[in-house]
Amino acid sequence: MRAAMAEAEVGDDVLDGDPTMRELEDRVAGILGASAALWTPSGSMGNLIALMSHLQRGDSFLAPRGAHVLDAELGTAAWLAGGMPQPLEHDAGPGKVSAGAVRLAASTAGPYYTLRTRLLCLENTHNAAGGTVTRPEEHATVAGAAKAAGLAVHLDGARLWHAAVRLGVPPGALTVGSDTVQVCLSKGLGAPVGSVVAGSVEFVEEARRLRKMLGGGVRQGGVLAAAGLVALDRIDRLAEDHARAATLAAGLRERGWRVQEPETNIVLVAVADLSGTLARFAESGVRASAMAGKVRLMTHADLTDADVGAALDRIGPLERAARQPAASARRAAR
Amino acid sequence: MRAAMAEAEVGDDVLDGDPTMRELEDRVAGILGASAALWTPSGSMGNLIALMSHLQRGDSFLAPRGAHVLDAELGTAAWLAGGMPQPLEHDAGPGKVSAGAVRLAASTAGPYYTLRTRLLCLENTHNAAGGTVTRPEEHATVAGAAKAAGLAVHLDGARLWHAAVRLGVPPGALTVGSDTVQVCLSKGLGAPVGSVVAGSVEFVEEARRLRKMLGGGVRQGGVLAAAGLVALDRIDRLAEDHARAATLAAGLRERGWRVQEPETNIVLVAVADLSGTLARFAESGVRASAMAGKVRLMTHADLTDADVGAALDRIGPLERAARQPAASARRAAR
Amino acid sequence: MRAAMAEAEVGDDVLDGDPTMRELEDRVAGILGASAALWTPSGSMGNLIALMSHLQRGDSFLAPRGAHVLDAELGTAAWLAGGMPQPLEHDAGPGKVSAGAVRLAASTAGPYYTLRTRLLCLENTHNAAGGTVTRPEEHATVAGAAKAAGLAVHLDGARLWHAAVRLGVPPGALTVGSDTVQVCLSKGLGAPVGSVVAGSVEFVEEARRLRKMLGGGVRQGGVLAAAGLVALDRIDRLAEDHARAATLAAGLRERGWRVQEPETNIVLVAVADLSGTLARFAESGVRASAMAGKVRLMTHADLTDADVGAALDRIGPLERAARQPAASARRAAR
Amino acid sequence: MRAAMAEAEVGDDVLDGDPTMRELEDRVAGILGASAALWTPSGSMGNLIALMSHLQRGDSFLAPRGAHVLDAELGTAAWLAGGMPQPLEHDAGPGKVSAGAVRLAASTAGPYYTLRTRLLCLENTHNAAGGTVTRPEEHATVAGAAKAAGLAVHLDGARLWHAAVRLGVPPGALTVGSDTVQVCLSKGLGAPVGSVVAGSVEFVEEARRLRKMLGGGVRQGGVLAAAGLVALDRIDRLAEDHARAATLAAGLRERGWRVQEPETNIVLVAVADLSGTLARFAESGVRASAMAGKVRLMTHADLTDADVGAALDRIGPLERAARQPAASARRAAR
Repeated sequence: MRAAMAEAEVGDDVLDGDPTMRELEDRVAGILGASAALWTPSGSMGNLIALMSHLQRGDSFLAPRGAHVLDAELGTAAWLAGGMPQPLEHDAGPGKVSAGAVRLAASTAGPYYTLRTRLLCLENTHNAAGGTVTRPEEHATVAGAAKAAGLAVHLDGARLWHAAVRLGVPPGALTVGSDTVQVCLSKGLGAPVGSVVAGSVEFVEEARRLRKMLGGGVRQGGVLAAAGLVALDRIDRLAEDHARAATLAAGLRERGWRVQEPETNIVLVAVADLSGTLARFAESGVRASAMAGKVRLMTHADLTDADVGAALDRIGPLERAARQPAASARRAAR
Repeated sequence: MRAAMAEAEVGDDVLDGDPTMRELEDRVAGILGASAALWTPSGSMGNLIALMSHLQRGDSFLAPRGAHVLDAELGTAAWLAGGMPQPLEHDAGPGKVSAGAVRLAASTAGPYYTLRTRLLCLENTHNAAGGTVTRPEEHATVAGAAKAAGLAVHLDGARLWHAAVRLGVPPGALTVGSDTVQVCLSKGLGAPVGSVVAGSVEFVEEARRLRKMLGGGVRQGGVLAAAGLVALDRIDRLAEDHARAATLAAGLRERGWRVQEPETNIVLVAVADLSGTLARFAESGVRASAMAGKVRLMTHADLTDADVGAALDRIGPLERAARQPAASARRAAR
Repeated sequence: MRAAMAEAEVGDDVLDGDPTMRELEDRVAGILGASAALWTPSGSMGNLIALMSHLQRGDSFLAPRGAHVLDAELGTAAWLAGGMPQPLEHDAGPGKVSAGAVRLAASTAGPYYTLRTRLLCLENTHNAAGGTVTRPEEHATVAGAAKAAGLAVHLDGARLWHAAVRLGVPPGALTVGSDTVQVCLSKGLGAPVGSVVAGSVEFVEEARRLRKMLGGGVRQGGVLAAAGLVALDRIDRLAEDHARAATLAAGLRERGWRVQEPETNIVLVAVADLSGTLARFAESGVRASAMAGKVRLMTHADLTDADVGAALDRIGPLERAARQPAASARRAAR
Repeated sequence: MRAAMAEAEVGDDVLDGDPTMRELEDRVAGILGASAALWTPSGSMGNLIALMSHLQRGDSFLAPRGAHVLDAELGTAAWLAGGMPQPLEHDAGPGKVSAGAVRLAASTAGPYYTLRTRLLCLENTHNAAGGTVTRPEEHATVAGAAKAAGLAVHLDGARLWHAAVRLGVPPGALTVGSDTVQVCLSKGLGAPVGSVVAGSVEFVEEARRLRKMLGGGVRQGGVLAAAGLVALDRIDRLAEDHARAATLAAGLRERGWRVQEPETNIVLVAVADLSGTLARFAESGVRASAMAGKVRLMTHADLTDADVGAALDRIGPLERAARQPAASARRAAR
């Protein structure tokens, strides 16, 4: 990847374009079944640009509770894109909402002085729910219900590659009915920097302007795009991360921890004392983070089977007390 | 009231003040146990000013699901005040949240790139829950938990008078622990225009500037303040509205409707076909509105016992089908 | 006026309308030659609503230097309506810009990453320039140039009545080519509270929603509208204010002050020590304010010829030093 | 540079930091005489972050007419940072404002309902004025006047390196009295992507959060930081660009063009027909852009003396008509 970056052909992407950037954007658009695409420095910016294009002041949008746009983007969906969020319960399984719930929430059309529901924002895999996977037919049904109710659909697919690999389907099969899609080249795929947001040609034209507003226009982005192109060749290797997450989860469960069955590369562990457990994990050399009141462990390209074994050896035997989720933790984890 | 308006002494309230305005603001501050107060053209502006003073970009705030600031102010809490909302379930009774839920939701302090929970916004009575009343000790406990967790507390008391009359306590007993309070002179109290937002002297100083930003500074406001002063003399008469709401609810229940027991002047009726029922009510000459998936009926100063009887005669016998809430209506009504 | 307010027929203007409000709005629309109109609690809100409807993020707008929307509305044109201001020099006389300047400023269309000039905001009379009057043909020419360049035109006509009376033309003659117009019922006309913003039916529909967002929706606004209707009957009496302003200006000039020849009811006096002069005026019982680096005196309905004489007697003889504008004052006054 | 990028040590800069990023930020802070610094994907984002930290709704800021933050950042200074701009004339030379002008503009403190002037934003070199250089003592005097008037000072130093090289002073000599400074690693220095914003430790802490809000947080940014480190070693070579700009200007002038004497690497040419001239230049293979109504030519690291000669050969003889600026072009060029 570094070699590709070192040899990338570049241009000025703020002005008339950088050829490697263009190649990356075209390739991602093709993969996602979109007409056009635009590189962004981060997934947060990709989501934000999409929401800015779909929403304005006085609008509301629907998203499954715990969605990244709700909890992990510093409120920009609200104060910058202008949408009042309407979080939906995961009534169709972890990380998933039903078509009925979307229909019901979208049907609240009222007089001129009421919020207008304009957008459904989905997330696949759903990070906070534990990297849970939405299947093509599930996505299409929910997206279809949203469209029928007059909503636009944005798919936060920062981890879409994981869902595709897990299901053995092309990523494009998971975007049907979406107006805009964001995918991340960093995180699982391992590019150093960058995401891509895709949609119609008109959307990308507007997105390019919105990216400039946010300060996300870069000059010789080709060096980063080159990394992204390499990353796209490596999607299939995510299966290894998924296998290691399964091993990690099974090992923890054997050692008495309460672990949610992982669907992709995220392992959620319910604990009584969240910050205490994170601290003990860190002392033992295993870095984890808090996610929806649980401990989140992730597997990624830089981990080997031996690393997973070592992690199990270190955190597996940690004190029993931490393993019994108290009432408060259960509530936080909802 | 019109006579008081006609005789009101006025000044220029944008410049150095209008004496009748000043009298109204001082009186409301006294009633609410606040140091200072400011008139606003609407309750929405009063709430918005309070939220703008408490919140900034990157903050989140807590409010009971269905709160006016969440659903009925066109998203200004989000896009203008800058707060990402975190709706709380009514885990302590209709319209009410528990101290534990506040504590838990406020405890999500994370690294620098996470939302900061800054504010709890309560509503008494809670309109969408059916005009439900929070008692002084309940409010103080929840507000105390919020303060202990480092949050500011705003009380949307557009209907605070109703809660005070119902409980037989002075309004000030219901504001303990609140940094800011908004009360409405229109609605139940019957002044033509105006609300008041109260808090510390520093808050009101900032609020005056925020009001000017929003275009809510008025010149000879004394004519409206005079109406507000008259309205404040009439708080006790809300007991009549409450009695009539009870009569209305009992009468509807006798006639086979599913009615929530009213605590103040709001009667919520669960129906299968919301828009259809509203239309039939309107045809029969009874004006109602949709609220949280139910039909909302309100009693107010311009209604007599005879009017309530007439309403019951008209809508009571309407077709049975409308009375059985279907699954979808039940869900909408949550 | 107070009697009219006391007898006004009212309704709920947030819901389905208040009949007196409706009458006022229809009458103002007629006067201005617009299709529809909407009452607002202040002129600032009227201007803001118009700018919010014309502008969005990434747009810029043109306005003569010193315009109320630039200097006296707390920046809402920029941070709330979203427009980057482009102040224009008064190249066609005090308070006035030429069609050529508009054409030139509007012609800066650039690539996708440049601001888009969308709006020209004019002001008649121009307050900061000294209540200066724009004539019908001047307004129409500049507005026409803006339209030809693809810009919308908003007229801040808070003092439009003054221009009409001074010129002896109907107010509607001064709005030709404007998409939206704001006029004030308070200030010169003497209603206690309120302005009106006028435009197309579609604009007013959107404006009604924007007004609700800003917290400017009021319930029984008819009491205020009734005052506005009375105020509209009194437009002609502004001629008296203009005559008194001329008397005041002449008297000050005779006594050695540097006075701009007033066109309407505003008298600007250039002084060396602005804050010192204001303080001395205040001590002598004459209230004035700072405007564009000068002292601004205004005549209004509550002043008599005797009041003007008394003011001249008090401030006329104040110390000579204050009358010689220093270099800094001259620059501030540009 | 590509080699350095390929070998860069990286970390996760959103979480606990990327070592190469940290090295770059520390080095730039040192160069600028600041306590701390933060990488951003673009200079626009760096400026925006600084303005967001200095300004809030209801504030205004001063900047020399034509400043990048006024004209070339899509209005974010206004609608996102919240500041109403107050453009200052270049009364101290092209691109430069006097201490007196700053003092005067900052002294407009009024009652509670007036804009508060909070910030002076300077630009060195000033792009739109033609890459003009502000000297250390000039900067310090103006910045000092701003501080004395209670303003914060931000220096848009996207081209600060050019000023330092031209003057033969260290870049830190040009930042005295500035609270925050933005410098660009791209543009003249030739790094593919990135700018740095510097200031106090507290500022950088807040800036890190603001960067995350805008979607500018990147993961393994070290690959870009490595390029920035190499770029910083090349500052001195800007002298070559300046020499070539001088050659270009002299050559054009000899050939009859109206050329502003370049101070750094920007050559401004006054023409009668701006878009026509740009088109003819493009046809001849010389890319130029419009800047303040003139043609802007720039020299940069990828140009040789031969390139400059070739450019002169191509555009020098283009038709005479283009060389006589008409009245409209002169006005646009102000």
